[in-house]
Amino acid sequence: MNLDMIEAAAERLAGHARVTPMLSSPFLDEIAGRRVLIKPECLQHTGSFKFRGAWSAVSGLTEQQRAKGVIAFSSGNHAQGVALAAKAHGCAAVIIMPADAPRSKIENTRALGAEVVLYDRAAGQQREPIGAKMSAERGLTLIKPYDEPLVIAGQGSTGLEIARQAKDEGVDTADVLVCCGGGGLTSGIALALEGHAPGLRARPVEPEGFDDVARSLAAGSIQANSGPQQGLCDAIITPQPGNLTFPIIHRLCGPGLVVTDAQVTSAMKEAFRRLKLVIEPGGAVALAAALYHPGSLQGDAVIAVASGGNVDADLYAQVLADD
Amino acid sequence: MNLDMIEAAAERLAGHARVTPMLSSPFLDEIAGRRVLIKPECLQHTGSFKFRGAWSAVSGLTEQQRAKGVIAFSSGNHAQGVALAAKAHGCAAVIIMPADAPRSKIENTRALGAEVVLYDRAAGQQREPIGAKMSAERGLTLIKPYDEPLVIAGQGSTGLEIARQAKDEGVDTADVLVCCGGGGLTSGIALALEGHAPGLRARPVEPEGFDDVARSLAAGSIQANSGPQQGLCDAIITPQPGNLTFPIIHRLCGPGLVVTDAQVTSAMKEAFRRLKLVIEPGGAVALAAALYHPGSLQGDAVIAVASGGNVDADLYAQVLADD
Repeated sequence: MNLDMIEAAAERLAGHARVTPMLSSPFLDEIAGRRVLIKPECLQHTGSFKFRGAWSAVSGLTEQQRAKGVIAFSSGNHAQGVALAAKAHGCAAVIIMPADAPRSKIENTRALGAEVVLYDRAAGQQREPIGAKMSAERGLTLIKPYDEPLVIAGQGSTGLEIARQAKDEGVDTADVLVCCGGGGLTSGIALALEGHAPGLRARPVEPEGFDDVARSLAAGSIQANSGPQQGLCDAIITPQPGNLTFPIIHRLCGPGLVVTDAQVTSAMKEAFRRLKLVIEPGGAVALAAALYHPGSLQGDAVIAVASGGNVDADLYAQVLADD
Repeated sequence: MNLDMIEAAAERLAGHARVTPMLSSPFLDEIAGRRVLIKPECLQHTGSFKFRGAWSAVSGLTEQQRAKGVIAFSSGNHAQGVALAAKAHGCAAVIIMPADAPRSKIENTRALGAEVVLYDRAAGQQREPIGAKMSAERGLTLIKPYDEPLVIAGQGSTGLEIARQAKDEGVDTADVLVCCGGGGLTSGIALALEGHAPGLRARPVEPEGFDDVARSLAAGSIQANSGPQQGLCDAIITPQPGNLTFPIIHRLCGPGLVVTDAQVTSAMKEAFRRLKLVIEPGGAVALAAALYHPGSLQGDAVIAVASGGNVDADLYAQVLADD
């Protein structure tokens, strides 16, 4: 896994993924006590950065592999990214999703042409045997959500844009806060910044109770989450960092940051008020850290990736209504 | 009022106004039955295109004028645009606002450093005498919201970006739907397109009951709204088109389009679901026309300007909750 792979992925993505802008608001600067720049990947195709990795992976397969189709496991954002990337390549996609994933994510994945297979995680049903059986029968290629070089390379294209845009904004040194689940986006951005913006340092951000990456960084080895596997920030809840992603994160990233659910919903409201952006809970953890953990950050500026915006309307309305 | 003035304004705006991206969603294309491109000016500084005209106007004053300060009348978006543009120029700003304007717009205008003077329009209080008295006493320069060449020129910079971005997207012919109040944005965009993208045609869009521009276009002369001066789409409700803006709109624009409040809230929900954008009611009329008036449009593509996103959280939550 190296910078060349990210640059190659960025070339495959050119004209297909959206170059998202860099946003800001004086009101957010005031809360944070420093300049805040937001990289809104919620504006990416399918509403999250996952489209980048999915496009990178599908476009990196052989014709023969694409002819048989792809399969993915996902609670939603990777699912939609793979569905749209596969559709655009004329490639069949099977997505294994938990039956209790946000309704909009399941509906969108279907509407993007994928065959969705639901499993009941509450009843202890495992997704891997379901996927293994379908893959074996149909010769589908598995596209992992993060522990896959082509996917990490695609997510890393976000980091190339951040490096360029930060320079345009006159920001040479800053913490770059990344919403972190399995670590694909964080490791990809970290590699891109190492090559193109050495003054910018990636840092993973996680929700309280699901801070496996922060604890792994502190321990120097992979630590898993115990307890429940579900929470408000569903998009970025994973059992533990990836075997490919963690060594990169460990080598390049600063310490992990952990935010509360209350900070997450507050950041979602600020994004609504000040940026006119819809951010889902898992996509708001980095902004929450930028706004509410100023003492843990270094530099005159902070860059926060808003990684996705796929939140159901009823949950969003409830977040806005709470005071 | 001509193209040179728009290009000069665009130069003054460079590096200060945001170049907003061009967004899209396959789900919106499907509803509209054609390709839909959205120009999200809700992502502009202060959450609406009004910042462009305000910056153009303040930067176009003499040093002496700026030293005395500026004054504006506005229900909210022009107010915030003028407040921020004035602050960035080190210039005092007085804004006369109706006391029943959306709370967030009043608060933001104050927070951006302007002196806000409220008047009670329900009680029949008139804003003009209040403004005239303050202007006379302090030598403030009035920045009109639309019937002012420097303001039209600033709004027209949106049209320069649309011309360039449409070309990048391979769109040569399309209706460009513009949320229309007094006509500053519509006339500015129309002039920019005339010069840079003759295959693109600007068309004003208004809410039902406040369709003065559509009726004026049909009649060939300025017509006024009768009845109430308030409605869901507060940002774009004006008594009648401007004396400067209407002749430009009449010469260059296609027929006006009129949408219902139900179509407006539906478009707001689609922007939430499919674009992750917060759009205020007045900023959603163009998207509503793009989605729900396909028979009135020409071409394989349509471009809709989402002109602003300054909506109060309680109203927005209510819109999302309604099925």
